[in-house]
Amino acid sequence: MQEKFEQISRPVVPEMETILGKPFSVLDEGFVRVVDYMGSDESIVQAARVSYGRGTKKRHQDRGLIRYLMRHQHTTPFEMCEIKLHVRVPMDTWRQWIRHRTANVNEYSTRYSIAIDAAYETDPHAWRLQATVNRQGSEGFLPVAVGEKMSEREKELHRLSREIYEERLQAGIAREQARKDLPLCTYTEAYWKIDLHNLLHFLKLRMEGHAQYEIRQYATTIGEQIVKRWVPLVWEAFQDYILNAENFSSLELQILSALYKNDTQKATELARAFGWIVYKEGKLTGNIERLEFEKKLSALQIEIPWK
Amino acid sequence: MQEKFEQISRPVVPEMETILGKPFSVLDEGFVRVVDYMGSDESIVQAARVSYGRGTKKRHQDRGLIRYLMRHQHTTPFEMCEIKLHVRVPMDTWRQWIRHRTANVNEYSTRYSIAIDAAYETDPHAWRLQATVNRQGSEGFLPVAVGEKMSEREKELHRLSREIYEERLQAGIAREQARKDLPLCTYTEAYWKIDLHNLLHFLKLRMEGHAQYEIRQYATTIGEQIVKRWVPLVWEAFQDYILNAENFSSLELQILSALYKNDTQKATELARAFGWIVYKEGKLTGNIERLEFEKKLSALQIEIPWK
Amino acid sequence: MQEKFEQISRPVVPEMETILGKPFSVLDEGFVRVVDYMGSDESIVQAARVSYGRGTKKRHQDRGLIRYLMRHQHTTPFEMCEIKLHVRVPMDTWRQWIRHRTANVNEYSTRYSIAIDAAYETDPHAWRLQATVNRQGSEGFLPVAVGEKMSEREKELHRLSREIYEERLQAGIAREQARKDLPLCTYTEAYWKIDLHNLLHFLKLRMEGHAQYEIRQYATTIGEQIVKRWVPLVWEAFQDYILNAENFSSLELQILSALYKNDTQKATELARAFGWIVYKEGKLTGNIERLEFEKKLSALQIEIPWK
Amino acid sequence: MQEKFEQISRPVVPEMETILGKPFSVLDEGFVRVVDYMGSDESIVQAARVSYGRGTKKRHQDRGLIRYLMRHQHTTPFEMCEIKLHVRVPMDTWRQWIRHRTANVNEYSTRYSIAIDAAYETDPHAWRLQATVNRQGSEGFLPVAVGEKMSEREKELHRLSREIYEERLQAGIAREQARKDLPLCTYTEAYWKIDLHNLLHFLKLRMEGHAQYEIRQYATTIGEQIVKRWVPLVWEAFQDYILNAENFSSLELQILSALYKNDTQKATELARAFGWIVYKEGKLTGNIERLEFEKKLSALQIEIPWK
Repeated sequence: MQEKFEQISRPVVPEMETILGKPFSVLDEGFVRVVDYMGSDESIVQAARVSYGRGTKKRHQDRGLIRYLMRHQHTTPFEMCEIKLHVRVPMDTWRQWIRHRTANVNEYSTRYSIAIDAAYETDPHAWRLQATVNRQGSEGFLPVAVGEKMSEREKELHRLSREIYEERLQAGIAREQARKDLPLCTYTEAYWKIDLHNLLHFLKLRMEGHAQYEIRQYATTIGEQIVKRWVPLVWEAFQDYILNAENFSSLELQILSALYKNDTQKATELARAFGWIVYKEGKLTGNIERLEFEKKLSALQIEIPWK
Repeated sequence: MQEKFEQISRPVVPEMETILGKPFSVLDEGFVRVVDYMGSDESIVQAARVSYGRGTKKRHQDRGLIRYLMRHQHTTPFEMCEIKLHVRVPMDTWRQWIRHRTANVNEYSTRYSIAIDAAYETDPHAWRLQATVNRQGSEGFLPVAVGEKMSEREKELHRLSREIYEERLQAGIAREQARKDLPLCTYTEAYWKIDLHNLLHFLKLRMEGHAQYEIRQYATTIGEQIVKRWVPLVWEAFQDYILNAENFSSLELQILSALYKNDTQKATELARAFGWIVYKEGKLTGNIERLEFEKKLSALQIEIPWK
Repeated sequence: MQEKFEQISRPVVPEMETILGKPFSVLDEGFVRVVDYMGSDESIVQAARVSYGRGTKKRHQDRGLIRYLMRHQHTTPFEMCEIKLHVRVPMDTWRQWIRHRTANVNEYSTRYSIAIDAAYETDPHAWRLQATVNRQGSEGFLPVAVGEKMSEREKELHRLSREIYEERLQAGIAREQARKDLPLCTYTEAYWKIDLHNLLHFLKLRMEGHAQYEIRQYATTIGEQIVKRWVPLVWEAFQDYILNAENFSSLELQILSALYKNDTQKATELARAFGWIVYKEGKLTGNIERLEFEKKLSALQIEIPWK
Repeated sequence: MQEKFEQISRPVVPEMETILGKPFSVLDEGFVRVVDYMGSDESIVQAARVSYGRGTKKRHQDRGLIRYLMRHQHTTPFEMCEIKLHVRVPMDTWRQWIRHRTANVNEYSTRYSIAIDAAYETDPHAWRLQATVNRQGSEGFLPVAVGEKMSEREKELHRLSREIYEERLQAGIAREQARKDLPLCTYTEAYWKIDLHNLLHFLKLRMEGHAQYEIRQYATTIGEQIVKRWVPLVWEAFQDYILNAENFSSLELQILSALYKNDTQKATELARAFGWIVYKEGKLTGNIERLEFEKKLSALQIEIPWK
């Protein structure tokens, strides 16, 4: 083996060193803190260049290479960075979190230890109304007057469930069983370790508008407070190519093409051919593919041709 | 390509066909039912023989080959079988279940739909006491008289939390938020799909004595009612080589060897050298490695030499 | 448990039953054949509806629901389908294939068995030239006259390496070592089992124009001969939303918006602000982000504003 | 949030700092070098203690806790450590390596770059003979005189295949195609990142006697040169409980129990009942389960009762 390798040292990101161990507050009693990290923007570049061999260093600037990788979903170099977080999260939020399977987890065990004495409480002004279009979402808030009653009732329930939990422990009941009636919003804690590629996938899904408010707060904190400091070039590319990008289906591309030629008639014919334009009793029915496309057009400030 | 392949058909396991869709009851309101399955004992053999090439069919009997694979942890052929279950499980049990990451899951969403109106209730005689040695376990039961009060209190809590849940829905609060104070033992449902190798790993951990009672009921049902019917040769091998097998550390093997020669002195010296035998104020202290080994010796009906 | 479940049977896809076991030819000596499958379009719908609860069956038509899931990357219902293929592939193609980690694999072992006596041969007209822009690709072909020499030389090498392989076996050398100098394009075989979500991801990456020719043949065969038959609604949605869709970055969206208003000046200014327009000695330099965007514009038949 | 967290710093393992970047030589032209690592023995303890809550620090000594976790397969705390290696490996060894799916990989691309000009060469005295019992293994060596011819022939083949590879590049053939006839033992390079739990699993399978010689050299180097320095307590526990431990099936345990009572008759009867003792023409047939058990008995220096 003729090749020489120099002594190396682990990459250090100064911006990260200043926040190591520092909790970022989320919700009323939750937090996220960085316990450890591996790699940096440079590590991604370094890994990508294994593929290209050694003679290619001048060709790409780091930023350009990272953007290229992000744009073309060459995801393996992003897996070369790893982060370990310590989080405190309501259990019902954790239920969504844990669905991301490609991560390492050590969670606080309420079989071993007494459950954390904190549940996520909802303020009177923070009770959200059921969304009508999106069956899984929320929109707007309950009037504060009603919210106050709701928060009162919640407190009552939290008190009773904690009281009963402690009665059980007092009576000698096993912790694994005593916990069974704690409210879903009881806080838990975990060490959560994940590579950057999978973390970005988590952020994409959980920073998005349809994600539930609570997990969105965690995802946004992780993204804007932590990832942005850790790998600033990746964060920029992620925003451009993933978070704020838009995907157009092959059907939508056909209509877009017609619209750019100002051929609104063809655009409308295409939409009709796709089954998007159906009238019932003289009224345009609410086809979901069309509605979603209309939103994309509005974001581009393009006029909707069939309106 | 000269080779000829005959038309084939999907393997059918008659024992499984009779239980497809049939719920096996678990706990008070839970169940497990098979929705679909892929493969059989024969599929494992077939996949293993890809490795050996085509000329080897006579060499191994199916049973012998499956036992060999199990014994030597040649796990990939077991991955060639897949099963899809529909389960109803209390959420706090589901929390343990979902930690097995190598599975496909579609869970009932309480963002979309109203939470299932059933919580796992504990009978007066079923309140378990905290184990003293094993900090995460339970042993024995609360006297029924006390249990009755506990069950009463539980009912009170379940009533209140459901009442408040429905108040919230009534007030128009979003389902995703209304659910936050449901008790952890509220039932959920899921489709759970997993390959046989990972299912056996799940069963190994969850049928084991230290697993919590509730998930043990599910695991045992899956093992004895379903896997046993589906892949009987695998089930037999799994019991012999995994479930009812015993592992001895390199230290334990040394002592075992001495004991076979009736050399209790050497056995004791070894244990002392390992740091297992420490006296405090004339009393043998509770070294956990020694205690666990003593249990293994007892199971083999071998006398403990240092007692 | 009051709910009643009816006896069910495994979903059968008639189109699939007719091709079970039948090899689809790929390259000169390769093939792909379906050994088993689990699920269908309906199984995806069924799994998705676990989330929505039972009262929602009328709301969505199956096709609409599948398209919705595909569009919004609700990927878990697609994981409820599973397929098992038997493939014969040159080892250097298999090297790319196996990089998809979320699959189950049993490969023909050249430790146990004598290596398959077939290597992928290149016809005189099929020698591809190195692409100049895309450093990892190919474009165009070698003149057949030169190709003939290349194919001759290849045959010579294949002969020698097989001869030496057999010499070694003859001399009693272990198969695991004798194989070490076989050419990378020697055929191997494997059982490959994967869920539909991960299969689609494989197809997306490997049917794409930048994938190497050889694996593209396999992916296209799997997509068009197998997946299309198995889950036709999924296949249609996959083509519309993934294969033939286009993603636009936040930067590109800004320019697109300006272009719709015919504001080519603003479009050009934006591009300049993004660093896409740099002149060197009076010539526009080859910025890769701009070039890729120009391709997307051309596909939409939109004129490039800065040209 | 009342709890206070102190500023922390990333764990540093001095023993590792001295070897960072340093290549450990393997085979003739291969190597393994550590590029980065995350965590230490202490990180495992720290993660495990999340489960136990904060009040338990005194209860377990670190070593005892790590041994406990290893013994009981509480594997998640080991996932909290991560290591990134740069390796150079013959492609046919890499084929086995890459079967471990739970790792992150960036491999040198021979589509982008010219193939590494090194193939793993076999010395005249290093040609291994096919094992007769173990169909996938090797045992003993070819006489050096014959080995010399074999090594000569290998050189001839390496020369020709490299010559043809370079002819192709010269003729302008795409790298992705030119490489197709390189010998399987051509070296490749990769960045390989994996968590400690999965690394130990890799080591268990690949340090084992049945693993092929070549990958065993890599695994042993990683284990003894790297893991031992990185997490010495884990390494010790791994040797005691995994590498040098022995598993006994439920059938074997029954016989063991009889043997410890010196009841060789019962032991033999059990073996017969298990189908292990079958005579053909007066000779004991070679039942594989019995043969493997006999080996375990010999290792314990226990006499085989039926001989």
